[in-house]
Amino acid sequence: MKTTIGVDYGTNSCRAVVVDCSNGRELGSGVYNYESGFQGVLIDAKDANLARQKPADYLKGLEITIRDALSEASKNCKDFSADSVCGIGVDTTGSSPLPLCRDNSPLGETDEFKNNLNAQCWLWKDHTSISEAEKITALASKIRPQYLAKCGGVYSSEWWWSKIWHCLNVDEKVFDAAFSWAEIADWIPSVLAGVKNPLEIKRGVCAAGHKAFYCEEWGGLPDGEFLSALSPKLAKLKENLYSKAYSADTVAGYLCAEWAEKLGLKEGIAIAIGEFDVHYGSIASGVSEGVLVKAVGTSTCDCTVKSADSKLPDIKGICGIVNGSILPNCYGLEAGQSAVGDIFKWWIEVLLGNDGSAFKKFREEVISQKPGEAGLLALDWNNGNRTVLVDQRLTGLVMGQTLHTTAAEIYRALIEATAYGAKIIIDRFEENGVEIKKVVCCGGIAQKDEMTMQIYSDVFNREIYIAKSFQTCALGAAIGAAVASGVYGGFSEAQSKMVSFKDKVYKPIPENVEVYAKLFGLYRQIHDAFGGVKTESLANVMKDLLKIKEEARK
Amino acid sequence: MKTTIGVDYGTNSCRAVVVDCSNGRELGSGVYNYESGFQGVLIDAKDANLARQKPADYLKGLEITIRDALSEASKNCKDFSADSVCGIGVDTTGSSPLPLCRDNSPLGETDEFKNNLNAQCWLWKDHTSISEAEKITALASKIRPQYLAKCGGVYSSEWWWSKIWHCLNVDEKVFDAAFSWAEIADWIPSVLAGVKNPLEIKRGVCAAGHKAFYCEEWGGLPDGEFLSALSPKLAKLKENLYSKAYSADTVAGYLCAEWAEKLGLKEGIAIAIGEFDVHYGSIASGVSEGVLVKAVGTSTCDCTVKSADSKLPDIKGICGIVNGSILPNCYGLEAGQSAVGDIFKWWIEVLLGNDGSAFKKFREEVISQKPGEAGLLALDWNNGNRTVLVDQRLTGLVMGQTLHTTAAEIYRALIEATAYGAKIIIDRFEENGVEIKKVVCCGGIAQKDEMTMQIYSDVFNREIYIAKSFQTCALGAAIGAAVASGVYGGFSEAQSKMVSFKDKVYKPIPENVEVYAKLFGLYRQIHDAFGGVKTESLANVMKDLLKIKEEARK
Repeated sequence: MKTTIGVDYGTNSCRAVVVDCSNGRELGSGVYNYESGFQGVLIDAKDANLARQKPADYLKGLEITIRDALSEASKNCKDFSADSVCGIGVDTTGSSPLPLCRDNSPLGETDEFKNNLNAQCWLWKDHTSISEAEKITALASKIRPQYLAKCGGVYSSEWWWSKIWHCLNVDEKVFDAAFSWAEIADWIPSVLAGVKNPLEIKRGVCAAGHKAFYCEEWGGLPDGEFLSALSPKLAKLKENLYSKAYSADTVAGYLCAEWAEKLGLKEGIAIAIGEFDVHYGSIASGVSEGVLVKAVGTSTCDCTVKSADSKLPDIKGICGIVNGSILPNCYGLEAGQSAVGDIFKWWIEVLLGNDGSAFKKFREEVISQKPGEAGLLALDWNNGNRTVLVDQRLTGLVMGQTLHTTAAEIYRALIEATAYGAKIIIDRFEENGVEIKKVVCCGGIAQKDEMTMQIYSDVFNREIYIAKSFQTCALGAAIGAAVASGVYGGFSEAQSKMVSFKDKVYKPIPENVEVYAKLFGLYRQIHDAFGGVKTESLANVMKDLLKIKEEARK
Repeated sequence: MKTTIGVDYGTNSCRAVVVDCSNGRELGSGVYNYESGFQGVLIDAKDANLARQKPADYLKGLEITIRDALSEASKNCKDFSADSVCGIGVDTTGSSPLPLCRDNSPLGETDEFKNNLNAQCWLWKDHTSISEAEKITALASKIRPQYLAKCGGVYSSEWWWSKIWHCLNVDEKVFDAAFSWAEIADWIPSVLAGVKNPLEIKRGVCAAGHKAFYCEEWGGLPDGEFLSALSPKLAKLKENLYSKAYSADTVAGYLCAEWAEKLGLKEGIAIAIGEFDVHYGSIASGVSEGVLVKAVGTSTCDCTVKSADSKLPDIKGICGIVNGSILPNCYGLEAGQSAVGDIFKWWIEVLLGNDGSAFKKFREEVISQKPGEAGLLALDWNNGNRTVLVDQRLTGLVMGQTLHTTAAEIYRALIEATAYGAKIIIDRFEENGVEIKKVVCCGGIAQKDEMTMQIYSDVFNREIYIAKSFQTCALGAAIGAAVASGVYGGFSEAQSKMVSFKDKVYKPIPENVEVYAKLFGLYRQIHDAFGGVKTESLANVMKDLLKIKEEARK
């Protein structure tokens, strides 16, 4: 028996799973809720944009979750022994950069800086760097448009350079004290491998990719002239970062004696390159050329790949096109919707103030509706639009209401809006030569919400598969470890053994497909109008909605 | 002491008031709920568009309400005697045509037709004639565009010819049996006056005006060629209708012995020409040149007048421009919003399922909001748009929602939307030379909803007066009677004595005016876009809403 461990670092907790490499089955797992701050996040009452994390929580979680997962695996499976573990993989949130000391220890755990929020990990959802992001976008569009082309045209306040530059701008002492910085996706594997010098961290191209403007085309990270134009100190920092980043088939290192001891594992087992959660999650959901994996939860992350041998244009609005960011020798392509489950939750909880019991009856009403019969159309922009418009300053819209429109009808219209938003992404891929033959969904909504998945299938006019695992990110990291440790010769082979789908496959219902095709045409019109894509007459929209409604009610 | 009686025929009930001519004070009133059908309306389970009314209910109500009003006046006021009553005025819904026998009795009360719905009064809200209305619009736009110009460009299924022609098309027997037809606004005064021949009914120009295509410019009712093109039988019917219609200063007749006996009033007192409810209501709210009266309830009716000496163009989207329809020697101008209170009620009752207790707390939340701070914008089209687009095939819209938007915020946005819709009407008047110096509101919302009236004042940037009377329609009919009976030499004099306003006058708050001016500009954009008025970029709308929101929250 050969097993690997995948460790998934989420926003509020981390989780380890022990996986049987022969079939991807989860033998045991352990969960740890970060201890510091509010639900594991360090916040600042004076600045709602601030979100940091204590690096010590990561290490404590690493030890506890792996030990618990091993112990549970031993209980669940008599054949299991910790000696069967031949590799560890790690996935994390990102971009979440951490300032480091010269010995690869976190600056935020030193006596001088342990209480300084700027010396901790800058969590993905920290938005304190809005102004830096805008300046980076402005500079790049002026002197390095090729940088922006790879990240959809707009550099985000969530990303690497915005955050590190903001640190320099608001707390130069922290910036100066940091020898280097690392994404936690790279740093945690380096800790397991006993790396004692940040220059020796094996960085993953997944995190380096568009978020740090890394690209082999221009020789790695941004050039000194560009960084100097932001600040000479950023150009200087580059010397302590890295010149090469690696894809997921590279070994990040081998388990050091200290951590082997802590975890009760064999010294020297392979540590896989770290990737962001959705990337490893998409691997565990079977991503490959022609397969789009959608992680559907509060928001969505959509991932697919395209062979690096193919000619791939820059795709407007697709923010990450990076060779090796998901699978080796493939361009990884990333997209996403800023809110999906969050919109449903808003309607039920914030707007209707609905409790669980009322919700059940309400859902039944929604399920009994036919496509188009409510005459409604909505935009899924309550939290802005990540793909394809890359514009946070957009908001929601619902139209087609009469004096009889019900809350359940609007709820369904909101679900449909997220389906149309998802189809816009699929269409954008296909218009640019990235064919999508199969859609696999994972995440909470994919697992639990059959109605929504059927609507997605009808709107996409495609079959939808559901990933079997509830922990696709951790499973993906375990698959990465299986490849790193040589259990499998590559990801394709590993996926064929370790990835599986639910029996239930959603198939498009022809009469619904027909109605949704019409509704999607109208969605496209208002999407383009309010999204600033196109100026055309909207005089038909309400009338066409009424026609569709009347036909549906016949 | 001189008094008059005003009788107001509503959709579900009628009401009489006895009014002191010296000051407009209501001395007594009586109400009667029509007995027949559902809440007084004859309906057809197989056709939701059908709405008819039993003429006997009108006569029974006439007797009961006037007797009750007189009796209450005697109780309330020792000086009062029925001998002081010197005139009666009547207002009704419309267009509500009634088929008549040769002796001016209702066809629907004859033995042969008493159970035939088509022989009863065709209530204003009967929409069975949609197809006839479309054909009339089509024919007029081809051969008599001048007809349409007076009614805003589209002939309605609610109006006279649509209904009578539909009767001919679906029940020729009823059509053939009817000697003539009359609006109930004309017929009820004729009954009081003892008219025994429909040819002798004094018809009011108020009802004849655009609803029957009556205009002195082309010699009265539509010409025979036009009517024959619809059906030769309609052209023939014209012979039994009328060639001249009169404004409200004409006496419709004098109280006949039979009805004087029934009511306990003096024989021979003046009966005023009947008008539609909102017209007499606007008189009792002080309508005159420069004054716009808005009856704000489930929907709105907006009335103003302009001297017949002035040059007045046809105004696009203003459906009734008729000389004498409200006040003598003035063009009456009518506009309206298809839903106002109905939209508020929809949001609270249908969508939120809110009960009275929750509503109170909710209202407080709405009142505490500042203009613009929710970042929302809505269209008030849940029931279509009567003025200025004259398009029933339009629907509601709400935009600007985030994940934090509350139900109370959307409620306020809906109120604001009705204010913007009202401002569009004011602007359309003023763009065409009909200046609006003063706005007077009457009706349920005007009387009860201070928040909404303040929002209207802020959006209009005008003071808003509230009519003091709760029964402006009946009071207006009593004012008509005071003029008809010669108590006053004309309406202007009568209004100066009999019309009064509440002490509370809503004044625009400068900082709100400023915010609403910006929001109205955005409303105008989406109004024009979805209303088919203009095609222009909408890329700014969501961003401008966010800017306004951020400023409001500073």
